Amino acid sequence: MERKNLARDIPTARDKTLFTPGPLTTSLAVKQAMLHDAGSWHFEFNARVKWIRERLLQVAGLSREDGWEAVLLQGTGTFGVEAVFATCLPPDGKVCVLANGAYGERMVLMLQHLKIDHSVLRSPENTPSDAAALDKALASDNSITHVAVVHCETTTGLLNPINEIGAIVNRHGRAYVVDAMSSFGAVPIDFAQAGIDYLISSANKCIEGVPGFTFVICRRDDLLGCDGYARSLSLNLLDQLKGFEKNGQFRYTPPTHSLLAFEQALKELELEGGVAGRGERYRRNHEVLVAGMKQLGFRVYLDPRIQSFIITSFYYPDDTSFSFQDFYRRLSDLGFIIYPGKITQADTFRIGSVGRIFEADVRALLAAIAAVLREMGVKMAQL
Amino acid sequence: MERKNLARDIPTARDKTLFTPGPLTTSLAVKQAMLHDAGSWHFEFNARVKWIRERLLQVAGLSREDGWEAVLLQGTGTFGVEAVFATCLPPDGKVCVLANGAYGERMVLMLQHLKIDHSVLRSPENTPSDAAALDKALASDNSITHVAVVHCETTTGLLNPINEIGAIVNRHGRAYVVDAMSSFGAVPIDFAQAGIDYLISSANKCIEGVPGFTFVICRRDDLLGCDGYARSLSLNLLDQLKGFEKNGQFRYTPPTHSLLAFEQALKELELEGGVAGRGERYRRNHEVLVAGMKQLGFRVYLDPRIQSFIITSFYYPDDTSFSFQDFYRRLSDLGFIIYPGKITQADTFRIGSVGRIFEADVRALLAAIAAVLREMGVKMAQL
Repeated sequence: MERKNLARDIPTARDKTLFTPGPLTTSLAVKQAMLHDAGSWHFEFNARVKWIRERLLQVAGLSREDGWEAVLLQGTGTFGVEAVFATCLPPDGKVCVLANGAYGERMVLMLQHLKIDHSVLRSPENTPSDAAALDKALASDNSITHVAVVHCETTTGLLNPINEIGAIVNRHGRAYVVDAMSSFGAVPIDFAQAGIDYLISSANKCIEGVPGFTFVICRRDDLLGCDGYARSLSLNLLDQLKGFEKNGQFRYTPPTHSLLAFEQALKELELEGGVAGRGERYRRNHEVLVAGMKQLGFRVYLDPRIQSFIITSFYYPDDTSFSFQDFYRRLSDLGFIIYPGKITQADTFRIGSVGRIFEADVRALLAAIAAVLREMGVKMAQL
Repeated sequence: MERKNLARDIPTARDKTLFTPGPLTTSLAVKQAMLHDAGSWHFEFNARVKWIRERLLQVAGLSREDGWEAVLLQGTGTFGVEAVFATCLPPDGKVCVLANGAYGERMVLMLQHLKIDHSVLRSPENTPSDAAALDKALASDNSITHVAVVHCETTTGLLNPINEIGAIVNRHGRAYVVDAMSSFGAVPIDFAQAGIDYLISSANKCIEGVPGFTFVICRRDDLLGCDGYARSLSLNLLDQLKGFEKNGQFRYTPPTHSLLAFEQALKELELEGGVAGRGERYRRNHEVLVAGMKQLGFRVYLDPRIQSFIITSFYYPDDTSFSFQDFYRRLSDLGFIIYPGKITQADTFRIGSVGRIFEADVRALLAAIAAVLREMGVKMAQL
């Protein structure tokens, strides 16, 4: 293991592979698309933005003809979720948040900051959001106008049942907000079946672009109906849509390079067979990962029935010679970046299955983990 | 002029040169720095973010030891300005905005959205903000807690007298917010002399990075004193600072590629001799531009005494055969992108002098403009 003794600022031949929930390892072509400076208000650039917005709807199985829009917004996915609340909640609106992880709790924080009325239905971090409890809550509280849920809770890797929840939201006639940050583009989402009104995702997740913007998919008329509600200029989604419709431009400086990268990423998504093809590769990555980790003696945190193929939480080994910091750094020295845990009730770490990584990359990671455990002298159950 | 007849989607050998206020033409090395995927929470990446934050203070002539911080925030410069208002205005705070262009007016829009009390001192678009009027306003309205001004109003290219205004703001003991979006890094700014409390700029302006984030330079203690005020989670600057201090990380997904580009851009700024060296090149670009345009018969919009060397507004020629749309498109066909006007009271267009462009690029633009005017049959005063 001489490698970890090398001076850390001598560049390696290739980047460390990211087994994280994003920003992800992207294709070289996606990054090379950024080797250009585009005029942010230029007609050639505007045409590419238009293409991106339309292609995003295609990925969602929707179209502008049917009244849908993909509104791009500068910033992170969090900005996009907050933009939906800040723009679309009427002054007397109220959100019911379904929370079973950090990203559900983040929605609560947003609503507190925005001083928007809200209630929270919490489930444990290893348990899907409770559709029956929501049914009761909506029946007993007519002031709730919107229900919000996180599709794939990357806190754990749990996949919430957005169709089941959506059926209840729609039966009660409320608006449905789905944070699909780390699922859109790889996990199939049927807007009609789930009854989604607002879906939020981000450039640097399953579409495999780079960070720089978020996007919201919603019905044009719904957004137009929110005139006058916006609590922030920067996060004003309706004005953002009006900007695109007025002259094809972002209201404020677009992340031109991220958009060029995203255009290429969308083309690569199509080459891979769209959502189904991409999901297949991620599923395979996940299966190889879990099988290999189990063989090494690791235990997964979630019940496989609620586990997404996006990211997986593993318990720390039951051995005092295991230190996550040390484990993480040794894997980094070997060229692999994993992710710390975010679960409040258990000691876990996370490994993503997403980005431009393949079964061979997962197997290389598994070999590195085995080597690092040996180095550290960690005794695993089966070893 | 066969070039404009080529199919527009056949890529050219090099990008069109951007004579805009940003995103700008950047160096190839800056763009090449984005050919890497960095782990957004990884210690190697965090170290680079730390370096960027410290180097930004150096560019400002400040240091962390003296209590200053550079807080990076995802999104555009507008997000940064709104973040200052959203985070730093106490519930009973009031902003006096000095406005003489679209960017001053944008501040007013932000304050309206945020429901923050404010007043506006407007000057015509060709006139610097009025320090004497501000003096009176502050003397007569004790409820004003903050004064906000745009340094270089890219609406016109006008440079507002931030030192003169700052002296009055400080004499009245109010906080001073300066939007230095398109000046910071090239126009010298003396924080002590101007008495600036909050300065906002952006990655894709005079530092010559690519879009993706904004930054706010302010005193640590001032920001810490704003606890509990934030009206938005995403735009919460104080939490953003606390995030960097807690673990060196952005709270939410950083624009990793933009940050790698910015690191390189800061190195190139230093190689060019810092703010003085960069400003010298831009000034030369501006002088060559104005001299050449005058020779062609164009009139500049602003009095040279208040004209920045960042961007220049030119009146349309007094000839009905001039159409800006046609002019713009013909210049684009020749590989040059200029900027439309934004002035409400006069027909103008704008040409920037900033980005990785040199005197030779400006001369090439001037030759193209001369050729296009001939093609269009536009009669100029001196021709």
